[in-house]
Amino acid sequence: METNNLPKLHSDFSVDCVVFGFDKGELKIILIERAEEPFKDYLALPGNLVNDNEDIDQAADRVLSELTGLHDVYMEQLYTFGDVNRHPQGRVITVAYFSLIKIKKQTLNPLSSYARKAQWVSISDIPKLAFDHSKILDKAYKRLQSGIRYQPIGFELLPEKFTLSQLQQLYEVILEKPIDKRNFRKKILSFGLLIELDEKQKNVSHRAAKLYKFNKSRYNNLKKMGFSFEL
Amino acid sequence: METNNLPKLHSDFSVDCVVFGFDKGELKIILIERAEEPFKDYLALPGNLVNDNEDIDQAADRVLSELTGLHDVYMEQLYTFGDVNRHPQGRVITVAYFSLIKIKKQTLNPLSSYARKAQWVSISDIPKLAFDHSKILDKAYKRLQSGIRYQPIGFELLPEKFTLSQLQQLYEVILEKPIDKRNFRKKILSFGLLIELDEKQKNVSHRAAKLYKFNKSRYNNLKKMGFSFEL
Repeated sequence: METNNLPKLHSDFSVDCVVFGFDKGELKIILIERAEEPFKDYLALPGNLVNDNEDIDQAADRVLSELTGLHDVYMEQLYTFGDVNRHPQGRVITVAYFSLIKIKKQTLNPLSSYARKAQWVSISDIPKLAFDHSKILDKAYKRLQSGIRYQPIGFELLPEKFTLSQLQQLYEVILEKPIDKRNFRKKILSFGLLIELDEKQKNVSHRAAKLYKFNKSRYNNLKKMGFSFEL
Repeated sequence: METNNLPKLHSDFSVDCVVFGFDKGELKIILIERAEEPFKDYLALPGNLVNDNEDIDQAADRVLSELTGLHDVYMEQLYTFGDVNRHPQGRVITVAYFSLIKIKKQTLNPLSSYARKAQWVSISDIPKLAFDHSKILDKAYKRLQSGIRYQPIGFELLPEKFTLSQLQQLYEVILEKPIDKRNFRKKILSFGLLIELDEKQKNVSHRAAKLYKFNKSRYNNLKKMGFSFEL
């Protein structure tokens, strides 16, 4: 990596986005391949500097769109990383954002030339990332693991209609441990947050399973009354 | 407020600290009285710019010490506020920190001249604060309210030895609602996280109540096993 000839920045802010998706039984995140120094050719989280005239939340939206082609992705702040030496060109404090989305297409289209491409990468295949992005990803993954135990955020990652097996698989993949099928079904159904549909899986070789939907309005009502979900 | 003659800053970072304490049945935070423009004479959260050579966590420690005289206060990151116009002198993104401490002395000693004084102020007596500090406080208060329902963080605010009434009062003040005494006692004792001491309150006019301690090592063990506390 060649960093000596790069201009030094003054203090600057950036945003970095950790976008999780779930596809074919795998938890994935979006990574870009950097076309420019520093960390040329490395994989990195979609991220860039914040412009002078934009709020940081707006910057996160813009940067994610420019680097992936995705629009209107709901993101929450994750954490701010501000070690003195985290960026080779000078002091850059980065605000990391966190998102869970339904993967609709595998092909992402970077509009900015500094990302050679953007892609979904399985969480189990991730190499050492550019900058301190491995540390940022680690923080995001821990937030996902603890979040899924108390809030029904897992549904954000599933298609609108899903089977109980898919839901269980999602929990197993995120929590990195096997879950007892009977207990899981009993517990998850006891919350009354799933709507059983009059519909079954299609195009499967095995016996087609029943499909369910997440009852978001019921969850929002329960939450207002102080209900808490815990798995 | 006179801001026109102040020098414009380049993009800069600051830290702001929300430090909660609990004293005589009141939830309090530390505020400083600003001795300099902008927002001269306003109350504000203890906060200042991050130096070029320090990590943001270090900056939060230094700034809190300089403005209050308190040392070694454990703080966690709360949220980063980055609206374009949040600071009248230019673009300043601030990383807010959050802390719960036992109030040992009411007198705080600012070492920096830009705080005229630092003081504990009851959460019910807080005026409009400098900058967007009211917004930051609001976020911190919400974090405290949701946090106390799932983690035994309330104990950080109480003296080491406390009565069940004091504990209940703390929950009532933070959650802003009355709690049924019998249910509260039953539930809080059922977690097995309190050590009943062979000691009673001293110097009280009413019947002296039994004192308890929080069993932190037991809590840490249970947490490792996936236990979750919920009130």
